[in-house]
Amino acid sequence: MRIIGIDPGYAIVGYGIIDYENNKFKVIDYGAVTTTPKNTMPERLNLVFEALTHIFSKYNPDAIAFEELFFNQNVKTAISVGQARGVSVLAAQRLGVDVFEYTPLQVKQAVVGYGRAEKKQVQQMVKVLLNLKEVPKPDDTADALAVAICHSHSSHMAKMFRIK
Amino acid sequence: MRIIGIDPGYAIVGYGIIDYENNKFKVIDYGAVTTTPKNTMPERLNLVFEALTHIFSKYNPDAIAFEELFFNQNVKTAISVGQARGVSVLAAQRLGVDVFEYTPLQVKQAVVGYGRAEKKQVQQMVKVLLNLKEVPKPDDTADALAVAICHSHSSHMAKMFRIK
Repeated sequence: MRIIGIDPGYAIVGYGIIDYENNKFKVIDYGAVTTTPKNTMPERLNLVFEALTHIFSKYNPDAIAFEELFFNQNVKTAISVGQARGVSVLAAQRLGVDVFEYTPLQVKQAVVGYGRAEKKQVQQMVKVLLNLKEVPKPDDTADALAVAICHSHSSHMAKMFRIK
Repeated sequence: MRIIGIDPGYAIVGYGIIDYENNKFKVIDYGAVTTTPKNTMPERLNLVFEALTHIFSKYNPDAIAFEELFFNQNVKTAISVGQARGVSVLAAQRLGVDVFEYTPLQVKQAVVGYGRAEKKQVQQMVKVLLNLKEVPKPDDTADALAVAICHSHSSHMAKMFRIK
């Protein structure tokens, strides 16, 4: 099963592509789509949409898993990041791929076995589980791989996590 | 100049299309795109994107003006509505139309001449200014026409309101 994990945003979108067969992971690719304030927000949304459409088409996944946005912060930021998440989910939906989402707590639970794990612990476990030489950078990339791992563990009960 | 005003959302998206020439308005069309919880959120985002792409293509506007989202409410709602706004702005951007945004205060100021005007006053002025027999329903439609009127008044200084 091929899974793409996405850590959504408008300045940095982390992505990670893994194959999961017989309880084994194979890393296909990972990285980050970045946009800068040199572009307007509509342009940045379009850049994110086009880059993800390209990645989703190229790697043809069975599922795309998003990290659920979580904010204590201000509502203005939530709207901006929500916009970027909207165009990212749209890119998946328009290609007919099933879309799932997991909370940060679910991701930590799946990857480290402990919902209150530190960010560093998650990154370290991503490195170990995927047999990588280094922790992927930027953090958004490691987070995207973590949500992909989370979906692989949850996919037998995937219906529960489908975005409703 | 042809202007489309949009009141963004994921359950109801109000739209209003007006022509503005020589200080006169002509109403071309107005209405609302609606989605229901029978569909998943990715499906609803795609329905909004496709409906707006159709409307924007059909009416070929010079400008599309969005009402800026404003929330006192919870961050979860802000993210959901932000997602819908994201795909709506994307639909405009992908057709190469200039995109603008106005706060509710700016819309009230432009339509009623008073930034703290009541919703009912705005709707009544939309009816009068556009020479309509009734206040357009649902409210989202009247709001969309109001933001289109607001842009017509501001378009000589439109650069200020371009979404950055």
